[in-house]
Amino acid sequence: MSVIAKTPAPPYYAVIFTSLQTDLDTGYNDTAQRMEELAARQPGFLGVESAREDCGITISYWQSLEAITAWKQQSEHLRTQERGREEWYSAYKTRIAYVERDYEFSR
Amino acid sequence: MSVIAKTPAPPYYAVIFTSLQTDLDTGYNDTAQRMEELAARQPGFLGVESAREDCGITISYWQSLEAITAWKQQSEHLRTQERGREEWYSAYKTRIAYVERDYEFSR
Repeated sequence: MSVIAKTPAPPYYAVIFTSLQTDLDTGYNDTAQRMEELAARQPGFLGVESAREDCGITISYWQSLEAITAWKQQSEHLRTQERGREEWYSAYKTRIAYVERDYEFSR
Repeated sequence: MSVIAKTPAPPYYAVIFTSLQTDLDTGYNDTAQRMEELAARQPGFLGVESAREDCGITISYWQSLEAITAWKQQSEHLRTQERGREEWYSAYKTRIAYVERDYEFSR
């Protein structure tokens, strides 16, 4: 279950991944969960949030650009990215963003 | 229906709004749609993406911090933010981020 990520005080980085899926979803949910678990073990990982409706949005938070690059190049993640392009996604867009400030509300 | 926003080449800004809802959803969907329509008329608006599952994620894209501030202070939006805290949201977090680069894939 995805909740609001408990990120530290800014600044830090966000990777915003927005995707449209194909009709092929074999193994998708298990692999997505596996990727979240793997990402959480990477140095510099700060948290992740995701939701899917018409499009899917996954935002992962990182301490540095170096941490993002290391995760992008992680070997199992590289193979999964390739499978994503071949099977699961009809289109996606990835944005790398520097989180400058935040504010929150809770009851 | 939310799709991948056709944002221009970076840099630009993103407002990442992650929320948890209460059990009160009276008027929520209509108001959310109205807010997207109003935002799209604001100067500097570049696009919006949203999805809801366990948590809701809405990302709006903007040309500048000034455009974000003007939207935050828009009068109907201000009243809606207050209603959100009183009725619809048990918690939310807003992050202001500077999008430095992006890349995309499509079939």
